Amino acid sequence: MERFDVLVVGGSAGGLTAAITARRHYPDVSIALVRKEKQVPIPCGIPYIFGTVGSPEKNLIPDDLLRQNRIHLLVDEVTTVDLENRVVRTVGGQSLGYRRLVLATGSEPLIPPIPGVELENVLPVKKDVPHLGKMLEVLSQAERLVVIGGGFIGLEFADECRKRGVQVAVVEMLPHCLSLVFDPDLCVRVEEELQRAGIQLHTGTRARAFLGNGKVKAVQLETGEEIPTDMVILGIGVRPSTGLAREAGLSTGEQGAIRVDRFMRTSDLHVFAVGDCATKVDAVTGKPTNLRLASIATAEARVAGANLFQLRREIRGTIGVFSTKIGSLALGLAGYSEQRARAEGIDYVVAQAEAVNRHPGAMPGAAPLRVKLVFHKWSRELIGGQACCSESVGELINIIACMIQSGVTADRIATCQVGTHPALTASPIAYPLFNAAEMALQQL
Amino acid sequence: MERFDVLVVGGSAGGLTAAITARRHYPDVSIALVRKEKQVPIPCGIPYIFGTVGSPEKNLIPDDLLRQNRIHLLVDEVTTVDLENRVVRTVGGQSLGYRRLVLATGSEPLIPPIPGVELENVLPVKKDVPHLGKMLEVLSQAERLVVIGGGFIGLEFADECRKRGVQVAVVEMLPHCLSLVFDPDLCVRVEEELQRAGIQLHTGTRARAFLGNGKVKAVQLETGEEIPTDMVILGIGVRPSTGLAREAGLSTGEQGAIRVDRFMRTSDLHVFAVGDCATKVDAVTGKPTNLRLASIATAEARVAGANLFQLRREIRGTIGVFSTKIGSLALGLAGYSEQRARAEGIDYVVAQAEAVNRHPGAMPGAAPLRVKLVFHKWSRELIGGQACCSESVGELINIIACMIQSGVTADRIATCQVGTHPALTASPIAYPLFNAAEMALQQL
Repeated sequence: MERFDVLVVGGSAGGLTAAITARRHYPDVSIALVRKEKQVPIPCGIPYIFGTVGSPEKNLIPDDLLRQNRIHLLVDEVTTVDLENRVVRTVGGQSLGYRRLVLATGSEPLIPPIPGVELENVLPVKKDVPHLGKMLEVLSQAERLVVIGGGFIGLEFADECRKRGVQVAVVEMLPHCLSLVFDPDLCVRVEEELQRAGIQLHTGTRARAFLGNGKVKAVQLETGEEIPTDMVILGIGVRPSTGLAREAGLSTGEQGAIRVDRFMRTSDLHVFAVGDCATKVDAVTGKPTNLRLASIATAEARVAGANLFQLRREIRGTIGVFSTKIGSLALGLAGYSEQRARAEGIDYVVAQAEAVNRHPGAMPGAAPLRVKLVFHKWSRELIGGQACCSESVGELINIIACMIQSGVTADRIATCQVGTHPALTASPIAYPLFNAAEMALQQL
Repeated sequence: MERFDVLVVGGSAGGLTAAITARRHYPDVSIALVRKEKQVPIPCGIPYIFGTVGSPEKNLIPDDLLRQNRIHLLVDEVTTVDLENRVVRTVGGQSLGYRRLVLATGSEPLIPPIPGVELENVLPVKKDVPHLGKMLEVLSQAERLVVIGGGFIGLEFADECRKRGVQVAVVEMLPHCLSLVFDPDLCVRVEEELQRAGIQLHTGTRARAFLGNGKVKAVQLETGEEIPTDMVILGIGVRPSTGLAREAGLSTGEQGAIRVDRFMRTSDLHVFAVGDCATKVDAVTGKPTNLRLASIATAEARVAGANLFQLRREIRGTIGVFSTKIGSLALGLAGYSEQRARAEGIDYVVAQAEAVNRHPGAMPGAAPLRVKLVFHKWSRELIGGQACCSESVGELINIIACMIQSGVTADRIATCQVGTHPALTASPIAYPLFNAAEMALQQL
């Protein structure tokens, strides 16, 4: 039986990062990574396969990273974990011993119990190259597409498929797209951008049935309306993949996720879990949260990988940082939106500021940059921020994320020193992050 | 005699931001701003007047901000400050009383004592619209230009003027351009970019004389070489404009700057000073520093404006955050470079990481993103970072700046949660800020 000091199950963002981090912190241990996929898609890049990028093969996590970090790759599927003997067994008949096990088994798409969901060309989004290849094949034959779910994945798919010239409709049960994340004003901006691209939106309603004979022909809404289509993409969310952990007897928590402590250890101290398969705790309230993002998985993996043989790091709670670009509109959120702060019963103060993302406004690429900040009233600390609309939002939202995680107060934000440049940022006088903090201070 | 609760002298970034901040924190006081210029150029935008932007009139700080914040504007020049009676007097014959005075008198260009510096078409860079208009006029007649000084201003001028088709040469006395800020590897990258644009570089040498009869005709270097030219721009730095303060009897410090405490108060507690005219203290060593940037001025102004009638904020030291774009190369620095840490005798650790600024690399706009971090060895805290080469550097360097100011350690950086998106950022696995922190940890 082969034995490894560290055995990682799962080869996507979380598993790979845990293995690399283990190598960095423990240069001399043996590390193996078992995954069932021959090739691993970059999870956040999946929607872009269908437009900008063009094929699943151009959206792969490079295996070079494994070789460079002396991580032994086994393409095989783990079937059982024997916690007592510290051995896993695989479909391929291998028995693999471990000193430390990292479960990074990810998540699988939720399949809604809608009549007709089994019809041909009704497809969930799986992080699987052959499946994505099949989706691309179906899409290339399709003139019309319905996307179920107006979250990030759903909208990014809609936007990318529309670029191919496909007629696209999105069905979202909530009153607005992206409304689990952003405040309504930003959701409306996104919806306008989608509509400008010619995408049909059906919000505040659900799919009642998928109609067709063999192949899907239409989506029937609760309103009775029927949307003719050649293809349906299901983008309504994921659930943790934890069969292996449950059968092994590890404790589970919300949504069946593998329960972990703040060192990313499961109920068996030799077993760690990271990413979509693991429980998470909201950084502000301390309550369980269902946020599932590759960037959270990698942060957890950097904790787990460092902690394998010695506790060195902890997760102080999950904040959730999102960014996307829909049409020409880039937007992002870190931590709490205003509506979420309200829903959690938090005494908050909110403020906004807008400026041009260049200075002077005559510089090329000039576009509006809007920042909205949410502060805890009693601690004066930043707990959330939203930003739109130009590309610098991608890193600007990470300044906000960093400030939230450092417990920075409104006063410290207003007097923070940053760099500004005509071709790259807003002016230091108008820098909207500072001005929003100043506006908040008038209410604190 | 007119009296104001708050009187600000100087209308550039520091003065304006101090006045706006005063308005935000003290809604009911009367505020006036006296400046000698009818129109105020955006300081960082000045080089862009000569290429991308096209005219001084397109690079103005809008006076709307004054009206919106109920700040009374007086275009006049202050000649004396009477600290005892709290009155200033102006060229226009006005006497203006104040309860609190903010001096934001800025800086003036250093004129090197080089023979021929008085020749026609040898011009310093002044933050003055008529002067900038004159420079533009001279430039539009010039076929050849020599820029003295390979710092930010000098190189941005060289790059912009070259875009007009002018033959440009830069003279820098140090071995590399920008070497007071960046480590040599980045300086070399910038020099290559300048040379690719057809700009001649003369580094490690000085101008010995400006030659000509009436108008400048050539620059003679210390090497004896003569560079024929129609125009010389002097970009060798600035010194604080503090005549007013010195004559009033306020204490001064390094380079003659007005001495301020960490609340931005001068030696007279009713008088504050901000920006290029005020002393600054290095955040790491606590020693005086000569950094002079609009973004530092506005940070100081946000402290001073809030503190006018009640101490509410403090400057914990100046870190210095720079960003620029030369040709297609964007780059930035926050805090300490490696060479500066070494020069200050700091026990440091340095690490670098590189990734693509998009994921997958097949996304449009993909370009290398390199991050170099410097940590204090004993505290494990971040004290500096450099980044290049794509536009997201503009805000990425501000994440680094925020982390330095929050005293974040390498471990906290490596496990920070950020947002990542294919069209906007590097992948969460390869995010170079985290990976550089991980590399540093292997030496800590």
